[in-house]
Amino acid sequence: MNKLMTLTATILFASSGIASADPLPSWNDTSARDRIIVFVDSVTDPKSEDYVTPSDRIAVFDNDGTLWSEQPVYFQLIYAVDEVKEMAQKDPSILTSDALKAAAAGDYATLAEGGEKAILEVLNATHSGLSVEDYQSSVADWLSTAKHPTTGLGYDQMTYQPMVELLSYLRDEDFKTYIVSGGGIHFMRVFAERAYGIPTEQVIGSYTVTSYKTVDGQPTITKEPGIGFVDDKEGKPINIDRVIGKRPLIAGGNSDGDYPMIEWTTAGEGPRLGLIVHHTDGEREVAYDCDSHIGRLCDGLENGPDMGWLIVDMANDWSVVYTGAR
Amino acid sequence: MNKLMTLTATILFASSGIASADPLPSWNDTSARDRIIVFVDSVTDPKSEDYVTPSDRIAVFDNDGTLWSEQPVYFQLIYAVDEVKEMAQKDPSILTSDALKAAAAGDYATLAEGGEKAILEVLNATHSGLSVEDYQSSVADWLSTAKHPTTGLGYDQMTYQPMVELLSYLRDEDFKTYIVSGGGIHFMRVFAERAYGIPTEQVIGSYTVTSYKTVDGQPTITKEPGIGFVDDKEGKPINIDRVIGKRPLIAGGNSDGDYPMIEWTTAGEGPRLGLIVHHTDGEREVAYDCDSHIGRLCDGLENGPDMGWLIVDMANDWSVVYTGAR
Repeated sequence: MNKLMTLTATILFASSGIASADPLPSWNDTSARDRIIVFVDSVTDPKSEDYVTPSDRIAVFDNDGTLWSEQPVYFQLIYAVDEVKEMAQKDPSILTSDALKAAAAGDYATLAEGGEKAILEVLNATHSGLSVEDYQSSVADWLSTAKHPTTGLGYDQMTYQPMVELLSYLRDEDFKTYIVSGGGIHFMRVFAERAYGIPTEQVIGSYTVTSYKTVDGQPTITKEPGIGFVDDKEGKPINIDRVIGKRPLIAGGNSDGDYPMIEWTTAGEGPRLGLIVHHTDGEREVAYDCDSHIGRLCDGLENGPDMGWLIVDMANDWSVVYTGAR
Repeated sequence: MNKLMTLTATILFASSGIASADPLPSWNDTSARDRIIVFVDSVTDPKSEDYVTPSDRIAVFDNDGTLWSEQPVYFQLIYAVDEVKEMAQKDPSILTSDALKAAAAGDYATLAEGGEKAILEVLNATHSGLSVEDYQSSVADWLSTAKHPTTGLGYDQMTYQPMVELLSYLRDEDFKTYIVSGGGIHFMRVFAERAYGIPTEQVIGSYTVTSYKTVDGQPTITKEPGIGFVDDKEGKPINIDRVIGKRPLIAGGNSDGDYPMIEWTTAGEGPRLGLIVHHTDGEREVAYDCDSHIGRLCDGLENGPDMGWLIVDMANDWSVVYTGAR
């Protein structure tokens, strides 16, 4: 074999190696994995009657409970509570309400009893009155040191390895992958690129009111008190229409807050894939669905299968759960 | 020369042909064109100290008056007025107000006298009570037949050829190009891909309230009465932060409604380009700035040059104006 032939053989070998590598190594060899791959093949093979042009290959995924864990409470709330603790150590006089006192004490039960009003007080205290840049520096600092109370992992190590692989697989097949989450856009954008390979402009979510004004001589976007938009339930398809302007081909979630987004996606013409991550793994994660306060899943479990949605059984379908536990 | 050498020479020649082709053929050889090219070179040349990684190469442009014409009134308002005329021909009883009667008569002067309230009535009558799909079909039908009152061109032939070239040039240099306009997202998305090469997910703008509900058994996004967001003035940087989450490298506009967007962009660290299209060409288009009701430009002309913004002089800097007039 001369040098050119060796080179050619090396290139061919390398190419075929890439093509045949398992795109979803942390998924067990079950029907869930098969359905995903068969679906993706059907919309990306130019010879398929279900072929979809790359510009229409849009995939949207909820974040909390779908791409990373959400127990015992949403991680963004843990950030807010940790912030109140730190602020109160510097200046205890900020604890002007029962909700803020409960947060400073790490008392999630009392916070939960206070309902939306209490949560909003904690959010306003920690998510407003500063520039987007300063807020995101604060979140980045927290992420670099905070540890989850039961796993001991960093929060951004508690992304789901099988879902990270799915996102990467879809991008390799020319999908544009989006987060569409009840979580805050400014919060998620701190880690979405690094953790999921999703750039800031593909992170859709809830947001606080913001203002544009000059602060210390600099034009600044400032996070203000109050909620600008809640990206949950009907808000999800509404926000997808606003920001993306196309009905997705794939929508994945884990709770009934994702139901309208998956319903709208799968009601579209042609092939569509609706996917629900069912938290069945009490050993490696937390098992919960219809009776849970966080990530309640009833309607999706009851109606999803009849609508052809893929219900992913974490305990059975995933060989690994957390990215940080590999 | 053997065959391999011929092939090599052909490839080299073709490559250098591509590299040296003029990216902005409808721009005259003036300082405006030079400044754009020098800026783009400085942020895309890996050896430049101002080099910016492709993922941060974001360019945003206003639409009305920046990418296409906006005289004698915004084209979206002409669509709305034409729609009222057509609806009134089928059912005159819909003309329940002076604003709607003025619209049906094509009486823009009376509409203008009625102010925002009159315009909102005409918008509600034509931009709500139907699905996004039905609305967009209606706009597409209108665009395929309607002609501009003075040029006789189709409205989507009244895009500015030099700006279409600029968008294409920026994309060739790995910029992501966005529209950020006071115009409606659902309206602009009908032609943005075809006219500008900008996909729906890169069209940012104003929007009506929308709902998600089941209509005739189908989950549907419906346009509802009322304005959800006005993407003008401070709304532009606020919306860029919400949707893109990055400060652009380049911002272009033509009116003081674009001032905050350009101000925020050019106040960013490192190299930035602010650009204003100044309507100086009364012969080929319409000459207007500080005294105009449409596209009023005062602050940008007064302060822009001191802030280093490029003021494009249409009469002097462009060899062609309308795409459809080539």
